[in-house]
Amino acid sequence: MDADPSSQLDFAKGGGLVTAIAQDDATGEILMVAFMNAESFARTVETGEVHYWSRSRDRLWYKGEQSGNTQRVKSMYIDCDGDVVLLKVEQKGGAACHTGRVSCFFRRLNEAGDYDVVSEPIFDPAVVYGREGRE
Amino acid sequence: MDADPSSQLDFAKGGGLVTAIAQDDATGEILMVAFMNAESFARTVETGEVHYWSRSRDRLWYKGEQSGNTQRVKSMYIDCDGDVVLLKVEQKGGAACHTGRVSCFFRRLNEAGDYDVVSEPIFDPAVVYGREGRE
Repeated sequence: MDADPSSQLDFAKGGGLVTAIAQDDATGEILMVAFMNAESFARTVETGEVHYWSRSRDRLWYKGEQSGNTQRVKSMYIDCDGDVVLLKVEQKGGAACHTGRVSCFFRRLNEAGDYDVVSEPIFDPAVVYGREGRE
Repeated sequence: MDADPSSQLDFAKGGGLVTAIAQDDATGEILMVAFMNAESFARTVETGEVHYWSRSRDRLWYKGEQSGNTQRVKSMYIDCDGDVVLLKVEQKGGAACHTGRVSCFFRRLNEAGDYDVVSEPIFDPAVVYGREGRE
């Protein structure tokens, strides 16, 4: 690799973080949204496996490290401002959400101003993640 | 509308803002990522036309207000944490990006660590936005 792909990203605007969207490469479904710092971006590029930055735990987060539901990068894009990364991925285990659902976007707004749950878990998070809950 | 749909959103975590993703309802292509505060979310729900919050201009941003390239909401989803809104939209004029491209994600990482530009503008931003540049 000759160039530094992170040089086109604007980490400063987001306090050291850029937004990262994981989209299923096969179906186009948006799976989840998280953050990356420079280290997680570099690890993702190097390994082809998605690494985020966990704000709640303040550490590098290798997606699937606990559940095995890793995300294999098929292609990566950056937006015009360089503050969002789009990851087209193959989602191992089929589900990205800590609730056991394929996508984190399982609540759809209805006309009453409430949300319908439009998908069900495909695995039991208590089994996959253990009692600690989400990875 | 009986319920308040913003009650399920966590604006506090992002300093009053949530992340908003616009996805083409017909093609599944991710068009752009921006932010919403409570007011822009409420306006979007009320009008069915996407309103963001512009951080750079610190004001409500009715998408397409200048270019006419508005975004019509087909459906809205929120994620498990309530800090991201997914908007499935019909993009008027076909292009969401201020560069005149369909999507803001027109730079794809290649194996040399550089980015390939994978789409071309479908309109001339200088004509659509005038000399002020992006809306």
